[in-house]
Amino acid sequence: MHHGWRDRIHCADQDNGGMMAGSAFLAVDWGTTNRRAYRIAADGSVEATERDDRGILSIEQGGFPAEAAAIRARMGDLPMLCAGMVGSNRGWAELPYAPCPNGIEQLSSAVQWVEPDRTAIVPGVACFRNDRADVMRGEEVQLLGAVIGGLTPRDALLCQPGTHCKWAWMVDGRIDRFVTAMTGEIFSLLQRHSLLAVQMDGQVEPNAAFLRGVADARDGDLLVRLFGVRADFVTGRAVDADATSYVSGLLIGTDVAARLGEGAQPVYLLADPMLGALYSAAIEVVGGTAILADSHAAFIHGITHIWRTLS
Amino acid sequence: MHHGWRDRIHCADQDNGGMMAGSAFLAVDWGTTNRRAYRIAADGSVEATERDDRGILSIEQGGFPAEAAAIRARMGDLPMLCAGMVGSNRGWAELPYAPCPNGIEQLSSAVQWVEPDRTAIVPGVACFRNDRADVMRGEEVQLLGAVIGGLTPRDALLCQPGTHCKWAWMVDGRIDRFVTAMTGEIFSLLQRHSLLAVQMDGQVEPNAAFLRGVADARDGDLLVRLFGVRADFVTGRAVDADATSYVSGLLIGTDVAARLGEGAQPVYLLADPMLGALYSAAIEVVGGTAILADSHAAFIHGITHIWRTLS
Repeated sequence: MHHGWRDRIHCADQDNGGMMAGSAFLAVDWGTTNRRAYRIAADGSVEATERDDRGILSIEQGGFPAEAAAIRARMGDLPMLCAGMVGSNRGWAELPYAPCPNGIEQLSSAVQWVEPDRTAIVPGVACFRNDRADVMRGEEVQLLGAVIGGLTPRDALLCQPGTHCKWAWMVDGRIDRFVTAMTGEIFSLLQRHSLLAVQMDGQVEPNAAFLRGVADARDGDLLVRLFGVRADFVTGRAVDADATSYVSGLLIGTDVAARLGEGAQPVYLLADPMLGALYSAAIEVVGGTAILADSHAAFIHGITHIWRTLS
Repeated sequence: MHHGWRDRIHCADQDNGGMMAGSAFLAVDWGTTNRRAYRIAADGSVEATERDDRGILSIEQGGFPAEAAAIRARMGDLPMLCAGMVGSNRGWAELPYAPCPNGIEQLSSAVQWVEPDRTAIVPGVACFRNDRADVMRGEEVQLLGAVIGGLTPRDALLCQPGTHCKWAWMVDGRIDRFVTAMTGEIFSLLQRHSLLAVQMDGQVEPNAAFLRGVADARDGDLLVRLFGVRADFVTGRAVDADATSYVSGLLIGTDVAARLGEGAQPVYLLADPMLGALYSAAIEVVGGTAILADSHAAFIHGITHIWRTLS
């Protein structure tokens, strides 16, 4: 089963982000709850895609080789390069975090093979800055891919909204530092389990209530503003239909204001359309500029580049 | 069943906080999940106390008169004055909030009888300030009672820690304004339902980890600091035994810093010993001074004073 693609020379320096010919492979973005798999042709084009809910939490201990075989049975018998939580202690194998600042060459050199010449995993990245630690697994491929693919400048602030929102400051094409905000998870906890849950059964939209939440967040007093949602309700000052969007605005507004506090700058958003619209609206309220970038394309650029340095 | 105690003259002005003779009554602090009842003698002394978990959520619709009868059967057939969530839409009767600024005379004049000359309820207080609304039900009796009983000055910042932490600025003995922070509820959500839950099985103590949380909270970036608890764990920088106290420190530190941001001042804490110790420690880190006051004594002072204006 040796394909010979590991014997080729390291070609990262000659690549310069272009779509040089390489070998075909399977790329898997393997997260906690979801998984995306792509068959990427020798010319870099995406020939097949699948998405399912076979995230690492749904795979039993020791079940990863069988999962990889099942992907190959569906998508082609090719070498596979994985990224994301699959490299955590709950995944296929626990890889040490690569240090920050981190560029695509450093990240590529830390890739580890879990099936010799057959299946490899890209490590996550850790950032230690003053007294703060932060970690990511999977987002680093998107971040570096966004720069390599020309979707963002080499010096830029990038944001990946979600359950745990990542903000990364790119310097000369590398991840210089990053922070993770628990924005999406706190929203979910409030919606599902809090005193406010009964009010939060609406959809989140970048509407007037959302924008009011973003504006109210600017005083930095989130813990009080959250109780205000209840107070507005029991005193008849606001209607429940607004509560979900307002709370989302409070949380996203708090997150955005903390990041852009040192002065407005463009933010490149790697986001799905809904979160992209919400973060864009919040960033504009705070005086920044938001630019949407294609997060899937960023992942493809990044993982393909890493693959070519290996193969 | 008319006892004649409603016909007496309003004696608040002559009272001055002393324990003038009045009539005996039952005082009930009737909250969402807990309830405290006191038999208060004509001389103001507490003759009997009971505490149980018969908060309003455990009482079925229409069940309040029977509950009051059961309290009288145990504690004495006396008139009853209740405060707390019993005056909410989920309680015995929904009373409108009394406006802020609010003194004990205004509060007394808004008491409503739910059983004529037999059982009365003290209303909650609402505060509208700029674009913020806030509400309380039950805490107002403690706050005003603390001043009347001489437990705190007439001009002071008072704090009642808990699931929903109340901060009240007293001016000339009245509640001038107040805010509610969702500090305790967010802690509980994180401990029970979040990514951090697995790390948060320890006890909260005002130890080094707690103080580190308070200090870290001063950058105002709670959403990022919370994820840092996870990052510290997966990178081996912190031990799980510290996580519960650290998260408590982050949240209480965020709450305290927001309140004392405009300059240090003494804070009078109406708190149980555990929360009192935690808030005291946090207030001192921020440069303030904490003074513990007896919250039960404050309630007795407040409810007794209100009773005497009625009887």
